[in-house]
Amino acid sequence: SSQEDSKAAPQAQMEWDYDGPCMKTAVPGPRSMERLKQLGEIQNVDAINFFCNYEESRGNYLVDVDGNRMLDVYTQISSIPIGYNHPALHKLMADPNNLSTFVNRPALGILPPGNFADKLAESLLSVAPSGMTRVQTMACGSCSNENAYKAMFILIPEIMWYRGCLATTHSKAIHKLDIPSLDWPIAPFPRLQYPLEEFTRDNAAEEARCLEEVEDLIMQWRQKGRPVAGIVVEPIQAEGGDNHASADFFKSLRNIARKHGCAFHVDEVQTGGGCTGKFWAHEHWGSDDPADIVSFSKKLLTGGYYHKTDLQADKGYRIFNTWMGDPSKNLFLVEVLNVIRRENLLEEVTRSGKALLQGLYALQEQYPGLLSRARGQGTFCAIDIRDDPTRSKILLKARDKGVLMGGCGERSIRFRPALIFKEYHVALFLNIFNDVLAEFK
Amino acid sequence: SSQEDSKAAPQAQMEWDYDGPCMKTAVPGPRSMERLKQLGEIQNVDAINFFCNYEESRGNYLVDVDGNRMLDVYTQISSIPIGYNHPALHKLMADPNNLSTFVNRPALGILPPGNFADKLAESLLSVAPSGMTRVQTMACGSCSNENAYKAMFILIPEIMWYRGCLATTHSKAIHKLDIPSLDWPIAPFPRLQYPLEEFTRDNAAEEARCLEEVEDLIMQWRQKGRPVAGIVVEPIQAEGGDNHASADFFKSLRNIARKHGCAFHVDEVQTGGGCTGKFWAHEHWGSDDPADIVSFSKKLLTGGYYHKTDLQADKGYRIFNTWMGDPSKNLFLVEVLNVIRRENLLEEVTRSGKALLQGLYALQEQYPGLLSRARGQGTFCAIDIRDDPTRSKILLKARDKGVLMGGCGERSIRFRPALIFKEYHVALFLNIFNDVLAEFK
Repeated sequence: SSQEDSKAAPQAQMEWDYDGPCMKTAVPGPRSMERLKQLGEIQNVDAINFFCNYEESRGNYLVDVDGNRMLDVYTQISSIPIGYNHPALHKLMADPNNLSTFVNRPALGILPPGNFADKLAESLLSVAPSGMTRVQTMACGSCSNENAYKAMFILIPEIMWYRGCLATTHSKAIHKLDIPSLDWPIAPFPRLQYPLEEFTRDNAAEEARCLEEVEDLIMQWRQKGRPVAGIVVEPIQAEGGDNHASADFFKSLRNIARKHGCAFHVDEVQTGGGCTGKFWAHEHWGSDDPADIVSFSKKLLTGGYYHKTDLQADKGYRIFNTWMGDPSKNLFLVEVLNVIRRENLLEEVTRSGKALLQGLYALQEQYPGLLSRARGQGTFCAIDIRDDPTRSKILLKARDKGVLMGGCGERSIRFRPALIFKEYHVALFLNIFNDVLAEFK
Repeated sequence: SSQEDSKAAPQAQMEWDYDGPCMKTAVPGPRSMERLKQLGEIQNVDAINFFCNYEESRGNYLVDVDGNRMLDVYTQISSIPIGYNHPALHKLMADPNNLSTFVNRPALGILPPGNFADKLAESLLSVAPSGMTRVQTMACGSCSNENAYKAMFILIPEIMWYRGCLATTHSKAIHKLDIPSLDWPIAPFPRLQYPLEEFTRDNAAEEARCLEEVEDLIMQWRQKGRPVAGIVVEPIQAEGGDNHASADFFKSLRNIARKHGCAFHVDEVQTGGGCTGKFWAHEHWGSDDPADIVSFSKKLLTGGYYHKTDLQADKGYRIFNTWMGDPSKNLFLVEVLNVIRRENLLEEVTRSGKALLQGLYALQEQYPGLLSRARGQGTFCAIDIRDDPTRSKILLKARDKGVLMGGCGERSIRFRPALIFKEYHVALFLNIFNDVLAEFK
């Protein structure tokens, strides 16, 4: 059991990870179907994939309630940083000194624990983006972005963003149906051709077009008497379909923000935590002053945002809610960061990511009518499928063969493995994926 | 230590609670001041009261890093249901079967644990409001209300609420400064005279006035082509200054909602969980059909909302984010509910609440120029102080004597003790409060 494993040496990852998928039923299997019916009496279950046995899940493998063991290349929408039941996290919970942090959740904005600043230093601040020494924790990704927007509004009253919905970070069209939005300008994100290095000229023109539109919008809104407070952008536009842009694009956008007195907010909720091969995706830009605000959640286990000193609220209670995060998640994050450093996981991700992207390029050549636009940074990869119905079929077939992936955008499959996804996991994945694709030739 | 205490019999509350406050320094003491300076390098610390030693805190007593032990009548803004380090919660963490729930936080909307429906049944559904069999968990109070609003918008496109700010539940004026809001109608909440039973006629007139305005607003907005989707109200308007209204008022408001086809959303984020002497404050209305949506957080340890079947989103992903709650909080809630039942804590709250309110009435007679408008339900009590500066001084003096309270509204003090706040804690509190007030006579 995972309990016994927790006593194993933490470096010996191979002792606690499984050695491959193992399928016993179609997915969802009969036990998942029973539970689906049961949960359907309580909630809408249309989005449920299947039910999980988290006790038995380990490393890169998610086990379901029917005993199926799947290689997980999606990891709870990119939110399990070092795999399931990592021994280091179990060890943390075996330490009696940590228990009261779980049992007594404080109102961090008024009565923080004595070690709060130390724990922030050990966890979030030890990986702070360049130029940022301040961080505010929040309970989840939506609250992180929402409060980051508030921090910008405190400076200046309007905001521009790249995605539109009611104070949340989703961009699936269905999230937005019927929900009123604030009247904020939305600028186009570049629509590039892949592989990026083969289309540098066209892509540069597309990026220039988008940058021009950003400046036009800032000007228009200033003329309307509603100056833009900030620009919000993801380093890789994730839910929207894994859209990439060049380091030059982001540095230019950052300069536009600076020139017009707008705050520059980089939303790293999905890209942060190491999956691009650097801890923050914006590090790939090679800028000393990448942003004014960087928001995070998911792999960081706690939500929140870093910010430069001038974006700190000028008074208490301006950025405030009851919990403002959860110190028990900071405890876990300290251990996750230790594991990332000790096991050189960013290097592993870079290696695995290269193997994954090369593999996707090869498959895309092999199946030209089926696959296109393979793209990625680190293991944060995606590929387009010929159409949405085929994508759905591929995702289900792959799952029945023991590989769990996710969709994004109109017809993309996205890969979001844990940081412990190694080259041999890539090979294992590509083999199964190839088998699946062969059926769609 | 709390570890040793956790082995004590859970019923023997008196064995793990302290027997009174014990002050060693002024508050904040020197160690808190050091840490305040340290945290000030990372965050705005204007709202920080002092730094806590959660390991040493027990029951009704919060211990700070300077070793001061205070009777806590505020409990982390009403969010610690059964006191600090309750043995039942420590026992839960000692069970190895529970650990993977803490270590592997799932994306509940797509891959719930096998026991998810069972745990919801044991926890949230076992205390579901009348007429509600469906519940959606969320990570915090803001997300709970925001997603409850979304659920209403899915039915009809406009909403009315009693409090205005950007998709959060705060109403301190400072929360709203500079933050853009949606253009939603805000109706007046009755401003009643206390004690309620002495002003029945005036209060009924005030409530009738407010109800009339609600219907006027609904009509006006319908004429504008923007029909009202829902009415949002707290059973006791909390941050706004602990404003009460009669059961008749709420039942009439609910009828107005029904008549005009609006959803009726009762926000029990602060009032829920037993502090009014019933598990939900709306139970005091004596209605079988109190609401269409009831949102919660704080004492429930997880955020979320109950709703009637017709308010369930019609498709998956319409109400969605990565985590949608945290199953480890549901585990704690199961134990909290067990303790509430086993120790008859709702009856205790009713008893303590009566003693507290009687005590406040007596003090208000004793200090007529200083105190007014004592009011409350269960231990969810408040009293007004002559002016804001005096309130601040009283709060600080009381703290230095070992009693921790909070403010709300323009000049109220609010009482938000844990459910294990007994009659003898009330007596202890009233003694110290009396000593403090005597200095302001």
